[in-house]
Order: sequence, then structure tokens, then C-alpha cells
Amino acid sequence: MDIKQIAEIIGAKYSGQSFEIKKINTLLDAQPSEISFVSNDKYIKDIYQTKAGALIVDGNNADKAPSSTITLVVDEPYVAMAKLSQYFSSSIESSIDKKAVIGKGSIVSEKAELRNNVNIGKNCHIMANVYLGDNVVVKDNTILYPGVVIYRDCHIGSNCIVHANSVIGGDGFGFATSKTGQHIKIYQNGNVIIEDDVEIGSCTTIDRAALGSTLIKKGVHIDNLVQVAHNCEVGEYSVLVSQTGLAGSSKLGHHVVMGGQSATSGHLEIAPLTTLAARSGVTKSIKTSGKVFGGFPLMQQKSWLKLQAKLAKLLKT
Amino acid sequence: MDIKQIAEIIGAKYSGQSFEIKKINTLLDAQPSEISFVSNDKYIKDIYQTKAGALIVDGNNADKAPSSTITLVVDEPYVAMAKLSQYFSSSIESSIDKKAVIGKGSIVSEKAELRNNVNIGKNCHIMANVYLGDNVVVKDNTILYPGVVIYRDCHIGSNCIVHANSVIGGDGFGFATSKTGQHIKIYQNGNVIIEDDVEIGSCTTIDRAALGSTLIKKGVHIDNLVQVAHNCEVGEYSVLVSQTGLAGSSKLGHHVVMGGQSATSGHLEIAPLTTLAARSGVTKSIKTSGKVFGGFPLMQQKSWLKLQAKLAKLLKT
Amino acid sequence: MDIKQIAEIIGAKYSGQSFEIKKINTLLDAQPSEISFVSNDKYIKDIYQTKAGALIVDGNNADKAPSSTITLVVDEPYVAMAKLSQYFSSSIESSIDKKAVIGKGSIVSEKAELRNNVNIGKNCHIMANVYLGDNVVVKDNTILYPGVVIYRDCHIGSNCIVHANSVIGGDGFGFATSKTGQHIKIYQNGNVIIEDDVEIGSCTTIDRAALGSTLIKKGVHIDNLVQVAHNCEVGEYSVLVSQTGLAGSSKLGHHVVMGGQSATSGHLEIAPLTTLAARSGVTKSIKTSGKVFGGFPLMQQKSWLKLQAKLAKLLKT
Repeated sequence: MDIKQIAEIIGAKYSGQSFEIKKINTLLDAQPSEISFVSNDKYIKDIYQTKAGALIVDGNNADKAPSSTITLVVDEPYVAMAKLSQYFSSSIESSIDKKAVIGKGSIVSEKAELRNNVNIGKNCHIMANVYLGDNVVVKDNTILYPGVVIYRDCHIGSNCIVHANSVIGGDGFGFATSKTGQHIKIYQNGNVIIEDDVEIGSCTTIDRAALGSTLIKKGVHIDNLVQVAHNCEVGEYSVLVSQTGLAGSSKLGHHVVMGGQSATSGHLEIAPLTTLAARSGVTKSIKTSGKVFGGFPLMQQKSWLKLQAKLAKLLKT
Repeated sequence: MDIKQIAEIIGAKYSGQSFEIKKINTLLDAQPSEISFVSNDKYIKDIYQTKAGALIVDGNNADKAPSSTITLVVDEPYVAMAKLSQYFSSSIESSIDKKAVIGKGSIVSEKAELRNNVNIGKNCHIMANVYLGDNVVVKDNTILYPGVVIYRDCHIGSNCIVHANSVIGGDGFGFATSKTGQHIKIYQNGNVIIEDDVEIGSCTTIDRAALGSTLIKKGVHIDNLVQVAHNCEVGEYSVLVSQTGLAGSSKLGHHVVMGGQSATSGHLEIAPLTTLAARSGVTKSIKTSGKVFGGFPLMQQKSWLKLQAKLAKLLKT
Repeated sequence: MDIKQIAEIIGAKYSGQSFEIKKINTLLDAQPSEISFVSNDKYIKDIYQTKAGALIVDGNNADKAPSSTITLVVDEPYVAMAKLSQYFSSSIESSIDKKAVIGKGSIVSEKAELRNNVNIGKNCHIMANVYLGDNVVVKDNTILYPGVVIYRDCHIGSNCIVHANSVIGGDGFGFATSKTGQHIKIYQNGNVIIEDDVEIGSCTTIDRAALGSTLIKKGVHIDNLVQVAHNCEVGEYSVLVSQTGLAGSSKLGHHVVMGGQSATSGHLEIAPLTTLAARSGVTKSIKTSGKVFGGFPLMQQKSWLKLQAKLAKLLKT
């Protein structure tokens, strides 16, 4: 999309030369043919280093970008980026011009819906009413139970099992709220990657990334009714028990265990081998591995037990 | 249904004239051709003003209704009403005698199931395995992802997105329990109305009203795995984060934000612009707008933080 | 499967006679043609009484079994049993050689998928995109809304209603973790039995038992987004409100009520007529019937209210 068109869409002034913008990206990842934005003071320091061809900023940050970067000044950069995200989003479903490739030994129900350019490995079992969106890849020996929906561009590894009615690759819960209180959807242009040997329960939802990938690593086990938000990473052999919720951009190390109805509040990291008791609520990163936590706010599980004993005593006074 | 037949179904004595009852309704809304009931002392004051043609009451309230209202006396009025609700319920699915009307530019999967008298606007995208029940209306530019189920009589506005495997219009969780401990289903004869510009995540459930409508107003954003019970109202541009649960008849004002895994306990109101932290549990109405709450029981979020600091101190003693 | 083959699969030494093993079973239930295992010291006392034809044990328990029982010694008996469970699992879906039997008056959507040997009673309504796995039985007058998935071998009683996109009979969340941190799936070879007069909400998941049956008894009402794990039993006329989670092998008596977002931690019993407030967390068996509990950790609801009052006072200090 031409930079002039972009300026028009977001209501910024631009009178320089025309050039093509191919993608929205983060400040540090953006290339000269890409556009980025600054909506949070936390990232201002990154402006100086950006290689982005163009940058959406507000008046306060109009003059901070390197001279190689064009700045488009608007009142609400985050809202402007949200508006723009629609124009850079891929089609949610195209017509089928590349029929699915299905590996030897795979059983695919006639009631499954395979959209454009789907690729299924060997010895898979794809049951009735499964939906595989454009460009979905499913590797060898994987079982998808009835009603599983895999949105476009997602990858499922070998030896995986996804139980009925789970949804992989739905849009992350992202929007910008304008000063007048309207929400503008941030189109979710990333995907979900599920590595090998993963089992996912029924009615579980794993959202696609806004940019990049939501990642479920090798050997992870996820129970029923679990929520994994956009841009999360779940480390190798981690375990998420039923009704657990991971907020956006939670990064779990390997062998993390989260008990039933536990949750994270997003943009945090959990060290490998951490165990979280049922109903734990994690709001800060956990940096030391191998510990056991519980409660909300989170504390070491032994502290939580001690606190409950103190409260039982308080009750008797 | 004739009043004599009704008396027979619920086991009440009635020796007056025959007349037709068209509907079950609330004490204050019921018309002369409708029947109502009193099952809760809270509503006794409304008996005196009812215009209902007939009223189901127990012995204690047999003589309170206006003379224009016939009373049917039973032991358990709520159970009697539940039994009766089945007879006034609409068919869950009729045969198709009015084929769906589909607006210009809309794409409807051949694997979608459109039941009787469905109406789809322009430029919609209805994907595989979507089910639209009798009389469902979907307005312009709306996207329904695979496996979405919309029960009969529900309305979806323009520019809406409903993600995969969500269910709109399922029966509210309503039943009367008899003295002998049996549950009698209260048929849910209302619907769900989703206004324009609403986005709903995957595997989310929004139940139809028992009578009237469950209402999701303009611009609301609802995440994955959220429960909205019967007769709720969610105000304009409100936001419900993943795994939130609204109990029956919760009324949220505009721009209410409910964090992940938060909940309400039903029959209450939340003032506009209220923010509820993750895991908040709301059990009473919130009357002042613009405040931030947290905890269960609910308190102002700053009090909750202070309480946690006090508990941390208690733990050290 | 021959005992010699079993020894080879799990890496145990065996040089005795060949004989056929038909099933994996518990120590106390196993017959001479069946194999069992000891993975938990709690069950060591049961070794002496087992009638199992063969037993998987570690070195410490090699010599405890009766002389009629052959012992296969391995490092990790639970992991060995998990590996073996795959070989004793039934096919997840066979080809259709017995077409479904459908009772008089039943309506079955052409878009429903009925697998091998399905049996549907009279006057049922099976809507679009329902999936009934091999050998599923649905009795008279039962309604299955669109997208409901019933896995193989499950039984649904008469006069039941299952709302859209719920999943009955998915695999329980079971695996053995090896010393090297890999999870080996324990195949779930049991089923789910739903008795008569049960109503189940939308997007609810009820897992099949590992062995035996997950059991939902007569007259139970289950709301939306509820999780019932493998081997649970829910007593007659019990009520599970939305987003409740039952962990594996929870046994609820009759007329138990669990409020919204409440949960159990598995392998426990709840006495009849118990009421659990919203968000209750049950971690120990409840032995006296008819009481009201709340909180996490669980206490009598009146104690919980008293504790909250004390905390409110603490906050003011």
C-alpha cells in the first residue's frame, strides 16, 4: 500500500514521495519497506533505533525518528494503527484453487471442510465437521476430532490430538479504544504453531498472534475449556489443566504445570518447571525455576497454606 | 390455550367460563389474554395492579388479585408455571417452507444449515457448519466463523464478527424445583439480540431470555469462553475478557470492562464506565459510575490492594 | 495380547509361558485374564489380594503378588501401563457396517454424522452437525442441538437435552510422566453414561472414564461451559452452574448444587444435598449432608461471610 494512501486512511499529512509499505511491524523488527507506530511511552527509546520506512506517532514524538524514517503524525497512533491493520490483513477465506494435498493412509471425512491450499500428512484422521482454513498444515499421525476449527495459516505438528469443538487460530482479543470510546479492531495477522506430540482437549481456544505466532511447543498437554490468548508461548511438556486462562503474550518455560482455573495476566514470563496450584493468579514474571506457587495475588504455595492457617485463626477470634 | 386446559395441566380447580390464554407474562406486563404467577413474596405488591387475565397463586395469595383476574390456586405456583411454559414454547425447529433470503454479495457455505425463514443481509460471510435457526436475522457485513450456532428467533446486527463454535440463543438455565426435589424446565421463549459492531470470541455462550431478550448492545467486545446468561444486558462498548461469567439478568451500563475470569451473581446492575479487575466477583449493584473494583467479595481495587498488603504483613507475624 | 508381547512393549523380562491378556484393570477388579499395575504406595496393600493374571511393578514390589500372578518388573510402572494402554484401546472410529437404527418419530438431520452401530430411540431430534460415534445410544425423546459431539460407546438417556457444541465422551486428561519429563498418554477406554431427564448446556465438556464410566445421574441440570472430568459421578438432580469444574473422580451425591465458577480437586466425595456457593473450591470430601459451603479453601458459608467481615475490619486498621 502506498504511503500516501496510508496517510489518507489515518488522517495524517504527508507531502513527500510515494513509496510502497508492505507490512505493519514492531519498532525493532520493522524494515525500510514496513511501517511501525509508537503508542506507549515504554517504547519511545526504540524509536531512535528503528529501521522502519515510516512511523505513526503523536505530536510529542514527531521529531525523534531517524532521518531515514518518515513520520506520520496523528492524535491517536494506536487507533491509527488499528484502522490500518485491516488493510494489511489477509483474506479470511479465499476460493479454492489449490485442492488439499492428503498424505498416504490419512482418513478425511467427507463432512470435513478443507479450504484452499491445505496440506495434510500421512496417517492422519480428520473427522466430520472439521474446518481447515487456507494454507493450514497438519503433519503425520495427527487426529482432529469432530468440529475442530483451525483458522487459516496455522500449523499442527505430528502425533497431535485435538479434541472436539476446539478452536485454533481465532482472532486475538485486540482493539484500540478511541478518545470517544469506540473500539477499533486490530486485525490479527499472525498464526498459531502447534509442535509435535501435543494433545488439546475439547472446547479449548488458542488464538492466533497479532503479528508472528502463538506457539505451543512439543509435548504440551492442554485440557478442556482452556484459553490461550494471542502471542503466548507454552514451553515443552507444559501442562494446562481445565479452565486455565493465559492472557496475551504469556511465555511459559518448559514443564510448567498450571492447575485448574489458574490464570496469568499477560506480558509475563514463567520460569521452567514452575508448578502453579489450582486457581493461582500470576500477575508478575516468575524468574526462578522449579518452585510451587498458589493464591491470588500469587505467593509460594507454602506461604499460601500458612496464610490460610492464619486466617482460620483470625476467624476464631 | 383454554384456561380450563391450563387448570387441568397444573392441577388447579376452575369452574368458570372458557377463554383463551395466549402467553405467560410477568405480573406487571401481562394483558387480559395472558397468564401470570406469583412465586416470590417480593412480587406480592404487584398482584394488586396486574391486568393479567389469569394468575397462578398459592393459597396465601388466593384473594389478592383484582376481580378482573381469575386465580388458579396450586401448592407450588413456580412449578406450575414451569410445567405450563412447555405448552407456550415455540417449536425448536420447523420444516423449511420459507427458504433463506440472502443479500447481495454475501457468501454462504454450502455446509451452512439455514432453517426456516432466515434472513441474511448484504456482504456477509457465513462459513461451513454454521447453523441459523428459524427466523434468524443476520444484518449486513457480518462474519460468522465455522461452527457458530444461532438458535431460532435471534438477531445479529451489522458489522459483527462471531468466532468459531460460539453459541447464541441456547436455553437459559431455568427450572423450578418441586418439593420432592425434581427440576421442571422453564422453557425459554425469548431470544438474543446482538446490535451492530459487536465482536464475539470462540466457544462463547450467550443464552436466550426466558421472556423478552438478552441484549448485547452496539460496539461490545466479548472474548473467548465467556458466559452470558439469560436476560442479561451488556451496554454499548463494554468489554468482557475471556472466561468471564454473567449470571442471569445482569445489566451492564456502557463502557463497562470486566477482566478475565470475573463474574456477576445476577439480578444486579453495573453503572457505566465501571472497570472490574480480573477475577472480580460482583454480588451487589454498582451505582456510581467510573470506578475500579476488584476482589471477591467486591471492593474498590485500591482497597483490595491495601488488603493484600495487610495480609502479606499478617503472614509475616 | 500375549504376555510376552506385553513384556517386550514395556521393556520387562519374562521367560514364562505364553498366555493371553484381555484388558488392563485395577488391582482389585482385575481377573486372571487381565493385567494390573502398582504405581502408588497407597495401593500396595491391594497387591496381596489381586486376582490379576499379571502385574506391572517396580523392583520394590517384585515379590508381593500372590503366586498365581505373574510380575513384570520395570522402572516406572505407571509409564509402562500408559504405554500399554494404547494397545488395549478401542478404535476411535470404525467404518460403518451397521447402519444406525432410528426409532419411530425421530428427526435426524441429513447433516448429522452417525457412525457405526448407532442406536437412536423414538421421537428424538438430532440436529445438523451432530456427531454420534461408534455404538452410541440415544434413548427416547432426547434433543441434541447442532454441533453436539458424542464420542464412541457413550449412552444418553431419555428426555435429555444437550445444547449446541457440547462434547460428551472426549478423552479424560490422563498421562504418565516419565523420569525424563515426557508425557505418555493413558488411553481412555471407558465411556460416559447420561441417565434420563438430564439437561446439559452449550460448550460443556464431559470426559469419558479411563476405565468404567463417567456417570451423570437422572434429573441432573448442567449449565454452559462446565467441565466434568473423567470418572466423575454426579448424583440425581444435582445442579452445576456455569463454568464449574469437576476434577477427575469427583463423586457428588444427589441434589448437590454447585454455584458458578466453583470447582473440586478430584478423588473426593460430596455428601447429598450439599450447596456450594459460587467460586467454592472443594479440596476434601464433604461427609455431612445438607450443609452450605463457600470459599477457597472451603469452609461453611457462614464462616466465610464472617471471615470477610473480619477482613473488612482489618482493612480499616
